[in-house]
Amino acid sequence: MNEFELIDRLKPLLPRNDSVVVGAGDDCAVLTAPAAGQQLLFKTDAVVEGVHFTAETPGEKVGRKALARAVSDIAAMAGTPTSAVITLGLPSGFSPDRVESIYRGMAEFASRHGIALVGGETTRSPGAMFLNVALLGTVPTGRAVLRSGAKVGDAVFVTGELGGSIEGHHLDFEPRLTEARWLTKHFDIHAMMDLSDGLAGDLQHILQASRVPGGEILAPTLPIRQAARLRARFSDTAKPAVVAALTDGEDFELVLTIAPADAVRLLDGWKARFPETRITCIGRLNDRPGLFLRDERGLKLLGHGFQHFE
Amino acid sequence: MNEFELIDRLKPLLPRNDSVVVGAGDDCAVLTAPAAGQQLLFKTDAVVEGVHFTAETPGEKVGRKALARAVSDIAAMAGTPTSAVITLGLPSGFSPDRVESIYRGMAEFASRHGIALVGGETTRSPGAMFLNVALLGTVPTGRAVLRSGAKVGDAVFVTGELGGSIEGHHLDFEPRLTEARWLTKHFDIHAMMDLSDGLAGDLQHILQASRVPGGEILAPTLPIRQAARLRARFSDTAKPAVVAALTDGEDFELVLTIAPADAVRLLDGWKARFPETRITCIGRLNDRPGLFLRDERGLKLLGHGFQHFE
Repeated sequence: MNEFELIDRLKPLLPRNDSVVVGAGDDCAVLTAPAAGQQLLFKTDAVVEGVHFTAETPGEKVGRKALARAVSDIAAMAGTPTSAVITLGLPSGFSPDRVESIYRGMAEFASRHGIALVGGETTRSPGAMFLNVALLGTVPTGRAVLRSGAKVGDAVFVTGELGGSIEGHHLDFEPRLTEARWLTKHFDIHAMMDLSDGLAGDLQHILQASRVPGGEILAPTLPIRQAARLRARFSDTAKPAVVAALTDGEDFELVLTIAPADAVRLLDGWKARFPETRITCIGRLNDRPGLFLRDERGLKLLGHGFQHFE
Repeated sequence: MNEFELIDRLKPLLPRNDSVVVGAGDDCAVLTAPAAGQQLLFKTDAVVEGVHFTAETPGEKVGRKALARAVSDIAAMAGTPTSAVITLGLPSGFSPDRVESIYRGMAEFASRHGIALVGGETTRSPGAMFLNVALLGTVPTGRAVLRSGAKVGDAVFVTGELGGSIEGHHLDFEPRLTEARWLTKHFDIHAMMDLSDGLAGDLQHILQASRVPGGEILAPTLPIRQAARLRARFSDTAKPAVVAALTDGEDFELVLTIAPADAVRLLDGWKARFPETRITCIGRLNDRPGLFLRDERGLKLLGHGFQHFE
């Protein structure tokens, strides 16, 4: 099966939406511009066999994950995803059935979120299979939530639970699109990002971008995923559960900061609107240099916050 | 050097433009929407080490090529490129200097064309290095030139010269942005695409998309690149030059079709506007099934045109 036969097989799978003037199959996709009062969001992301999935991961889950990762970044800006283009790097001897199942997984997820798949390139890849997703979205002008708006004194919240994603969550997570838009509609969210590399590291990106010197995370408050607890309990080599919650990657939850005066109202509003999903206040930002974890033994430095003259 | 140190090194290289509200460094880029009366163009494309470049290709040329390939697709729609996001897949033990030189090559080319680089992801790649470019562009509403507008009787033109790109053109080509916009401003271009897989195959995509049964290419008219002639002359294993012009990949020239009544005016106008670049009428589309090459020995079938009931 050559590239063009493969494309013919995949093209009918690709969902469209109202923004699509010309979809996959021409030199570029042609899309209507966003409505007045909207800005564009633009993101690229790849998954690679042997890094983000294995040869045993079902194709549908590979495709779903590749797209959902990028959608999570749109969620972190409080935006709405609209259309994606895919690049698939294929080793020689690839299975067309596997490629089709990857596309089915992407297409199913895309359809459910109203995302059009408007281009699908394939290229040879002498090494591992890779799958790149470039995603467009929209956000009302000026309403994108950046990493750079956090303030000293802010309360820090995370959605859902953290750690142990490798046990399955990294293939099944639901990007927090609805939650993020609800948060920004009802509250002045100062800073927000999605957790892909682990809370301890990712929160430092917010400190850096916002020029906030430090913060404190309260260990007992951390919402630890059951999978992380079980790994810690039943494996001699696994991280302690708190460490997993701080450092495991691919949580794809939101971390956000907000004025402390809004914290209780946020907790109450969230519980009414999303009764089945946790949101947890895990700490505060402050002007003492460094990001710290506070547990029963005291304070432990997790990393540097924003430092002048660095 | 970890991913974040690498990003810190690369970020100052990234050019911006007026459309950039938030560039690289947040979860997504934020961009102003195109002006009223414009549509978006959206394209993704990757280059892979061992396929599109080698470990010996200078980094600057790798980066330039990766971006220029995608720009060539924007040109083929008669559009204007505006902003790009990059994914770089890196084997372990990569050289930060090489990555920086790749980015320098991309950034230099982007700057020259007013393209903002608004995101740069890196990921591990256990196999070969790969570089994915996703590119946005704009085109006046309804003015994108598709592959699907060709008509029986159209004259077929190609820009520049064909064949032997592997000798260097594939690293140095200039996408035909200015030429494409000039063509669509002054002529009713029925169909257009850029040549990436070789004229014989690519022209069939136009026949298919346009539902045109066939066409005839006149061998003596083919504008053959000097590199293809030299390879044919000095290598026993190289393709004949005409075959190279028809089947070699990565020409990144435009092939377009136009009503024959406009052909002479196009040739005259082009010569006045682009005196240093060739444009050549290489044949006609017709309603006889199949795409044929006509040379001194007669007609040779290159491939099927559009077939009903297929």
